[in-house]
Amino acid sequence: MSETELDIASVAQDVLKLAKELGAEEATAGVSYGAYSELTRRDGRIEEAKESRSLSASVELLVDNRYSTHSTSDLRPAALRAFLERAVAATAYLEQDPNRRLPERELLGLAEVDLDLVDPGFVDGDPEPRRRRAEHVESSVRSILSDQSVRSITAYSWDGRSRSVVAYSNGFSAESERTSFGMAASVSLEEPDGRLPEAWSSCSTVHATDLWSIDTLSEDIRARALSRLGGRPAASGKYPMVLDRRVVSRILGTLVSPLAGGAIYEQRSCMADRLHTAVAAASFSLFDEPLIARGAGSRRADADGLPAHRRAIVEEGVLQTFFIDVYNSRRLNVDITTGSASNLVVPPGRESVADILSGLDRAILVDGFLGGNANPTTGDFSFGIRGGLYERGERVSAVSEMNISGNILDLMMRFEQAANDPWLLGAWRCPTMLFDDVQFAGS
Amino acid sequence: MSETELDIASVAQDVLKLAKELGAEEATAGVSYGAYSELTRRDGRIEEAKESRSLSASVELLVDNRYSTHSTSDLRPAALRAFLERAVAATAYLEQDPNRRLPERELLGLAEVDLDLVDPGFVDGDPEPRRRRAEHVESSVRSILSDQSVRSITAYSWDGRSRSVVAYSNGFSAESERTSFGMAASVSLEEPDGRLPEAWSSCSTVHATDLWSIDTLSEDIRARALSRLGGRPAASGKYPMVLDRRVVSRILGTLVSPLAGGAIYEQRSCMADRLHTAVAAASFSLFDEPLIARGAGSRRADADGLPAHRRAIVEEGVLQTFFIDVYNSRRLNVDITTGSASNLVVPPGRESVADILSGLDRAILVDGFLGGNANPTTGDFSFGIRGGLYERGERVSAVSEMNISGNILDLMMRFEQAANDPWLLGAWRCPTMLFDDVQFAGS
Repeated sequence: MSETELDIASVAQDVLKLAKELGAEEATAGVSYGAYSELTRRDGRIEEAKESRSLSASVELLVDNRYSTHSTSDLRPAALRAFLERAVAATAYLEQDPNRRLPERELLGLAEVDLDLVDPGFVDGDPEPRRRRAEHVESSVRSILSDQSVRSITAYSWDGRSRSVVAYSNGFSAESERTSFGMAASVSLEEPDGRLPEAWSSCSTVHATDLWSIDTLSEDIRARALSRLGGRPAASGKYPMVLDRRVVSRILGTLVSPLAGGAIYEQRSCMADRLHTAVAAASFSLFDEPLIARGAGSRRADADGLPAHRRAIVEEGVLQTFFIDVYNSRRLNVDITTGSASNLVVPPGRESVADILSGLDRAILVDGFLGGNANPTTGDFSFGIRGGLYERGERVSAVSEMNISGNILDLMMRFEQAANDPWLLGAWRCPTMLFDDVQFAGS
Repeated sequence: MSETELDIASVAQDVLKLAKELGAEEATAGVSYGAYSELTRRDGRIEEAKESRSLSASVELLVDNRYSTHSTSDLRPAALRAFLERAVAATAYLEQDPNRRLPERELLGLAEVDLDLVDPGFVDGDPEPRRRRAEHVESSVRSILSDQSVRSITAYSWDGRSRSVVAYSNGFSAESERTSFGMAASVSLEEPDGRLPEAWSSCSTVHATDLWSIDTLSEDIRARALSRLGGRPAASGKYPMVLDRRVVSRILGTLVSPLAGGAIYEQRSCMADRLHTAVAAASFSLFDEPLIARGAGSRRADADGLPAHRRAIVEEGVLQTFFIDVYNSRRLNVDITTGSASNLVVPPGRESVADILSGLDRAILVDGFLGGNANPTTGDFSFGIRGGLYERGERVSAVSEMNISGNILDLMMRFEQAANDPWLLGAWRCPTMLFDDVQFAGS
């Protein structure tokens, strides 16, 4: 903590003390601080160097068994008092809801594990590595695309650090801190017919040493840029869909969001009656794994302050659990699990994506989504997609302006296998996935 | 300004003083404060009462002719100094860019007009009108939908006040303040086939007395909810498109965004060579009107501090101006206009929407967009749409899961007429608009 940095733990305690003074029976205070630096290079020059700082507080109040949540970024003591006075007054309008009481103190705690979420090499204020990274990204991308008609290249590099504390009026409190490092590039190419396909690639990690090599980033962006050339719809029909590891969240998110306790209580979930039944092909499993060292979604406690641990969500196709936080466990009268996902892991398979594609007569590799929507109550979805058409492993053409639509339960039953390439740079740690017989429509 | 409220003008001056001390030749400081209260009722009970406060500062620096922008919400004096030290240091990495110097002092000023952007009846802290509004919205919507199978009704009401100041190191500064009031509702219905169509309606104004009557809101949401029942794609083909006044921004935004000076300088604009040429049918005009009293996008000065005034963007189909701020006027060596739009106004026509529809053998009324994208460099667009199919003014069916695609210049040439129903509750003050021969595709 640098000299000028706010002591967020003591601000959180001040909020709790004030809230109690003003009449709250129970309160939770969260305070977060973030410092972030970013550099942008565009076509040979540094275009932007941006520093940002964020500081904010949230408070949950229980006043006469009435519950409310509020937020502020004005943390001056006099302003904080005025804000909390208003917040306590506003709470009086709500219905009583004793289910909102804090979890029992003995449930609260932190998993006893070092998640390694702070890079000890992070030097707050040193812009040199950031500057070098952006410069190398741009020159590497320019060099690897030297045989192409490049209209523009933009390179980004950034790093930051955030700290947060949550404190409960029952005495529990937890602090966490994490660093982040990243680099990215975007390119636009020119096609002879005047089209200007664009592509980007990005890599973000908790420790600087875990970043990709810059060569890996530029090879990735070359592959993605070339794959955009000449995009057009393929013939409408059913194809095997090979879903790129970086975009599985769009599909699996449609599976996971109806598992939330709130959705189930409010009857907005197509999963409500499906616990311990098959919701996917038997080859599909999905785990919530909060304790992965350096993981993008890792945490020692969940949002209720309960110690985090690994949990099967779907195992061999069978739904194992909902995401039930303390509040919804009381409303639904079911056991607490955890209110939200941390890192979501689909176990990788043995074959490479290339091997999977070469075993298919014809398939569409989906590596981007464009618009669309999904209805958690019914599971119906419709998404715009782009990617490539393959025949026995050979790329035939780029695909754009197509849609897939259907129902998530039906789609998950068509899951065939996972590739051996799990994505490890985000909270969705999933490999590329193959689904059979997916309906594609040209628009 | 209440007792505990921060003196944002003096914070802005502190930022300027510190920036100069730390070596900036020129600086601009913006400080904003907002207070916002919101109430949510769902199915008969108040579900949420939320207070929020936001306070943040942005700073633009020119150090040795190098320019950078930064932001922070940590306004404690010691933190502000540390932040500005970092910001000044980061600026040293940038190329020199003297075009970024502040505008000449004599260009800066405020239009001499009272925009009436503060409702004198706004009582900071009184939750009663907000509570009554949410209650009446919910009961009115429930009553008007009593013949329908309603799954859920949610009603919202909110009000807030924001103040901001911008100060330049050349001595110019400007403060502004505005109030806002709003109400909204969302409903989900149940269809016999298990589908759950949803609809919402919303109204937000600067003065409380300008809000719709609650009856108007509930009639609107009934019409919108019923129009969702039984939605399906119509046959693919060319139809006249009647574009609802509340969603014209999706189409006209595609026309306006390539007019930005930055897009033109960076060759990302399909409009670059089209000044003073026809970019739309001769029946189409579009004006930027910043000085409308109580307007959602109204302002006395633009983002550069130049006094705001009315401006024709397109007149009788001919493009009259680009959006050129001070920086881009120097880069492009053209006259300054203004860098961004305020209120965008399409003059209304004489016929009602019903009259227009009844004059068409077959037409699709588009009242919602779902996903899609537009390319400012080429003007090509593709959007998912929903709405209704009409034959000689009779609604035949709801339409969903369709796309429109084409080029914005081509589409604007197909503009036929504006209806007599200008929307006055947002910064896009446009009537419903008729376009001929638009390509619709079922997905």
